[in-house]
Amino acid sequence: MSLQGYHRWIDKCNNGLRVQHAYHQWSIGSTPCGFIQPWLFQRLRKDFPSVFTVKQSEGHHLESLALSEELDTPDKRSTALAGIMQKLREDGSLTGWRSESYPVLTAFDSEPLALVERAAAVHLGIKAYGVHINGYVRRGSGIELWVARRSRSKPTWPGKLDHIVAGGQPHGLSPQENVVKECQEEASIPRELAQRAQSVGAVSYSSEQAEGLKRDVLFCYDLELPDSFEPQPQDGEVESFQRLPLKDVADIIAQTDDFKDNCNLVIISFLVRHGFLKPEQPGYLGVVSGLLSGDCS
Amino acid sequence: MSLQGYHRWIDKCNNGLRVQHAYHQWSIGSTPCGFIQPWLFQRLRKDFPSVFTVKQSEGHHLESLALSEELDTPDKRSTALAGIMQKLREDGSLTGWRSESYPVLTAFDSEPLALVERAAAVHLGIKAYGVHINGYVRRGSGIELWVARRSRSKPTWPGKLDHIVAGGQPHGLSPQENVVKECQEEASIPRELAQRAQSVGAVSYSSEQAEGLKRDVLFCYDLELPDSFEPQPQDGEVESFQRLPLKDVADIIAQTDDFKDNCNLVIISFLVRHGFLKPEQPGYLGVVSGLLSGDCS
Repeated sequence: MSLQGYHRWIDKCNNGLRVQHAYHQWSIGSTPCGFIQPWLFQRLRKDFPSVFTVKQSEGHHLESLALSEELDTPDKRSTALAGIMQKLREDGSLTGWRSESYPVLTAFDSEPLALVERAAAVHLGIKAYGVHINGYVRRGSGIELWVARRSRSKPTWPGKLDHIVAGGQPHGLSPQENVVKECQEEASIPRELAQRAQSVGAVSYSSEQAEGLKRDVLFCYDLELPDSFEPQPQDGEVESFQRLPLKDVADIIAQTDDFKDNCNLVIISFLVRHGFLKPEQPGYLGVVSGLLSGDCS
Repeated sequence: MSLQGYHRWIDKCNNGLRVQHAYHQWSIGSTPCGFIQPWLFQRLRKDFPSVFTVKQSEGHHLESLALSEELDTPDKRSTALAGIMQKLREDGSLTGWRSESYPVLTAFDSEPLALVERAAAVHLGIKAYGVHINGYVRRGSGIELWVARRSRSKPTWPGKLDHIVAGGQPHGLSPQENVVKECQEEASIPRELAQRAQSVGAVSYSSEQAEGLKRDVLFCYDLELPDSFEPQPQDGEVESFQRLPLKDVADIIAQTDDFKDNCNLVIISFLVRHGFLKPEQPGYLGVVSGLLSGDCS
């Protein structure tokens, strides 16, 4: 069987790699932090010259912005960036405010250079992290996967299919703690059960959205659930849960756009790791390596 | 816990990436096929001008060799290359003859451009493939991994620790068929049991050996074995088998050089996929992405 239906998700989630050259970089000191669209580049250089200064880029043909060297601590940088984001929010350039902090990182295990409002992460094209959990049941007939239907009133991806539990990785929480927290909040999975979630790797991608580049690394977890367990929507983000044979989920991914884009990658990783996809299928290695197309650090 | 002990295997198995610029490329038509050391470049251009001609490289600073355009079928190319390899064998430049054919491929699912003797794969720096199987047992106390000790009379890696079963991927056999065959030959694992081996992804690397660049993609398989099963050496390649708690195997990898180099990568993949390594450990994402450092296609 051709894996074209899976490859299209790798391509779609990595359309950012093809357009990155049209973005401006921004940096703190000599450390590149993210990519911004031309309108934001112009806005930041004109309206906030005490925070951002223009510099020539190394290895990138467009001009870059550098954060002022006077902002020499993470706190000072966070305060200056927060002030800018508040102004952009007030004039409508920045929507979907979450009141949640994302760190500006060069790698997941590096020290945060600053904190920014989560809604600005894509505008600033910084690397962001998340936890995605494949909740599954082993039955005699094979594996079944729990799938959520997102609430139709959610601002992002309303009504799309989703993992049983998934969430962005905020500052100050370990991925494992975040898994337990999100399991409780999104699907009423008790702590003892959630703690069984097993880290199994990661997927990374660079996706262009209207607001900018979404440069994500998603930590993938497998959570084997008892046959008797039923997840329950808790925080209003999920409309309903259903349990589907893995084959049916694979068909939905290969043939439809029903899942939220990035969930496709994490489920394809599950299909690879559980032997549902096989080396004999043309394009197999392209799928395996394509799941790490983004900057995975 | 630092993952430095694992990172060193990713670095060691990918030392080829750092020296590749000192190799000459060779191609069939416009298709790059591999990398050769300067002595072999000189030898081929001087002694076999009807087979190889010199051309300027695109994107590579050293001169390249191109196979003669008159060799316009895989059969003709295979015959011409076999003649050269036989001459190199006779004068001692090529040792370890296996009488086994490896295909010259641009990607695993592409049509072979030629077949070459397996012993020449590293000299010619072509991409090669293998199957590596982690044979494990689930016990109440956790996972235990079956580990082989290679025969001390083996020409390659004598006495080193190895997977329960692993083998190169020859022409004309599917990876799954190869798994079943190698399981029987190396560990006396019956077909019905071997067929349960589950494909779980791949690792890729580029390793410099004395003879050239070993540019491998290893298809990884997990094979859960019954507690009662004991592998038996069959073809003289294995001295003995032992079953070790996963933690002990992880310590061997992190702290010693006991395993054959590339086995470390496949077991590290197992440690990632089974949650033994965790996102909270500094260097986790470097390990995850580092397992695919080579050209994985």
